[in-house]
Amino acid sequence: MTNRQVVIAELPKGALTPEHFRLEETGMPVPAEGEVLMKNILMSIDAANRAWMQGATYRAPVLAGDAMHTYAVAQVVESKSDRFKPGDIVAGESHWAEYVVKPAKALIKQPDIGSLSHLLSAYGIAGKTAFHGLLSVGTPLPGETVLVSAAAGSVGMYVGQIAKAIGCRAVGVAGGAEKCDWVVTELGFDACVDYRDENFFKALRKAAPDGVDVYFDNVGGKVLETALFQMNEKGRVVCCGAVSQYDSAAPSGPRNVPGLVVVKRLRMEGFIVMDYAHNDAAAVKALQNWTDSGQLKVVEDIVEGLENAPGALIGLLAGENRGKRMVRVCPDPE
Amino acid sequence: MTNRQVVIAELPKGALTPEHFRLEETGMPVPAEGEVLMKNILMSIDAANRAWMQGATYRAPVLAGDAMHTYAVAQVVESKSDRFKPGDIVAGESHWAEYVVKPAKALIKQPDIGSLSHLLSAYGIAGKTAFHGLLSVGTPLPGETVLVSAAAGSVGMYVGQIAKAIGCRAVGVAGGAEKCDWVVTELGFDACVDYRDENFFKALRKAAPDGVDVYFDNVGGKVLETALFQMNEKGRVVCCGAVSQYDSAAPSGPRNVPGLVVVKRLRMEGFIVMDYAHNDAAAVKALQNWTDSGQLKVVEDIVEGLENAPGALIGLLAGENRGKRMVRVCPDPE
Repeated sequence: MTNRQVVIAELPKGALTPEHFRLEETGMPVPAEGEVLMKNILMSIDAANRAWMQGATYRAPVLAGDAMHTYAVAQVVESKSDRFKPGDIVAGESHWAEYVVKPAKALIKQPDIGSLSHLLSAYGIAGKTAFHGLLSVGTPLPGETVLVSAAAGSVGMYVGQIAKAIGCRAVGVAGGAEKCDWVVTELGFDACVDYRDENFFKALRKAAPDGVDVYFDNVGGKVLETALFQMNEKGRVVCCGAVSQYDSAAPSGPRNVPGLVVVKRLRMEGFIVMDYAHNDAAAVKALQNWTDSGQLKVVEDIVEGLENAPGALIGLLAGENRGKRMVRVCPDPE
Repeated sequence: MTNRQVVIAELPKGALTPEHFRLEETGMPVPAEGEVLMKNILMSIDAANRAWMQGATYRAPVLAGDAMHTYAVAQVVESKSDRFKPGDIVAGESHWAEYVVKPAKALIKQPDIGSLSHLLSAYGIAGKTAFHGLLSVGTPLPGETVLVSAAAGSVGMYVGQIAKAIGCRAVGVAGGAEKCDWVVTELGFDACVDYRDENFFKALRKAAPDGVDVYFDNVGGKVLETALFQMNEKGRVVCCGAVSQYDSAAPSGPRNVPGLVVVKRLRMEGFIVMDYAHNDAAAVKALQNWTDSGQLKVVEDIVEGLENAPGALIGLLAGENRGKRMVRVCPDPE
């Protein structure tokens, strides 16, 4: 029996391209004591994957020769651990591969929720990141204005919808007029501004006439710099990602940091979804309630086939996705 | 009777020079109902004065033709208000002048503490800024490492000394080997690193071998960027000022913002001393206790004569002061 995996051929120095990856056939991996052999079903595609290639972050770096790291939902095929039995659905760190061996203790058994893709979107990393970052880091009050970049992306789309659900004004930033229209008409944001527009600064001011109280930043760079000018005193900047910088060989810093941070008494705070795992149960409950009531739309962007994972990530970095992007390696089990 | 004042001849676009000011003789100002005529005794010279020339900040901007704004300790000469009588010592917003008229309600009566200069240093804005910023914004724990830039300056010198007093490791950043030696030997910091040194990055790592938990930033720019690389996870950056940027026509942003803020889950937070006025009584009490016990050294840098105020500010921006700089307009009253 053979396995297929996508390996990093070479680490990128600038923009990520298909040449940085190669598809390999290998032997089937064998679990040791305490490990399980699992079959990937859905692999999460995230901007953070690109950041992992830049060196050590909050986790070990990805290196040339590695099967690309990912977060995935998988089914246990063979278990050398009391924790799991064949057929169990689990989630955790995985690789871009059909079959992967992992220590049982690094995996979490998943509830039966019908469509497994929701474990990576609304009730998974994307929804939880939006929930914890907006509410625990950004601490918005109903009536305040929440701005979010990458508003059509996996996290941004939930940030704006949660902001609306709790009574805030939700303003998005996205790339291109068509995507901005979609964010307003499909997701129900109050406004969405195109950062590629030459009048971005003025358009943002018009979209947030009372200023911005919470800016949920997924992109860094120029959009962050522009947003800081619109912040109200005592505003909060939730630092979730810097996708504009990951694919760049020469990152640029916001020139109004720390000047405006002092003058406006801003708080900029970074977080990782795992920091708030103690509140995950509340997050999932609220996200399910809002989904059931129709206040939260779940939008997923599923790319079929392991071999298409490199293109899925490259496209995500270019902003082509709407909603949570993932790669399906095999169908949901019956 | 005539008055003397120093007026902004022209607002600076780049570096501040003596040509941006002119000394004028004017008539004696006359207080209206609710106002007082006061005689400046000591004027506070602060990096923030330069920031006020860049436009509206947390206060109204300073404009060409204005007598330069300042914070000062003064004596009431004539009062058209029940709040004060001639001879009272007051503090508040003032101008670079011998005599100034101000609304009585904008002034605060000062306690009798012997040396009036301490009202601008240890028990005034400098000491309170260090106290509130370090303790309420930076929230250091005993045993943690506190890094502070402009360590020989009016605020920085208290930040490091307060850090030591509560059981932290105190590391300073200053310009030049001689000043760094002084910070360690005179002020008792554990270490002080010269930001002009070509090995600044390595020297900082050596001075803070366990990393930095709280960075009290007075300067922004390259020093901020370098400090962020040394921060520990969940570190706090107290954004107090950006003196490296005020005198620059082309400010530069820290290129690791927001990347490192996310990865290390940092909190960067700006503040103004007035935000914590509700804790001023505690601050002054603690600062007095530490001064009385010898844990806090009070260092003042007093420039004599109103006409020397422009040079005092220009020199401060170049980093020539040690301790709190102020300008004496007239002697303390008997």
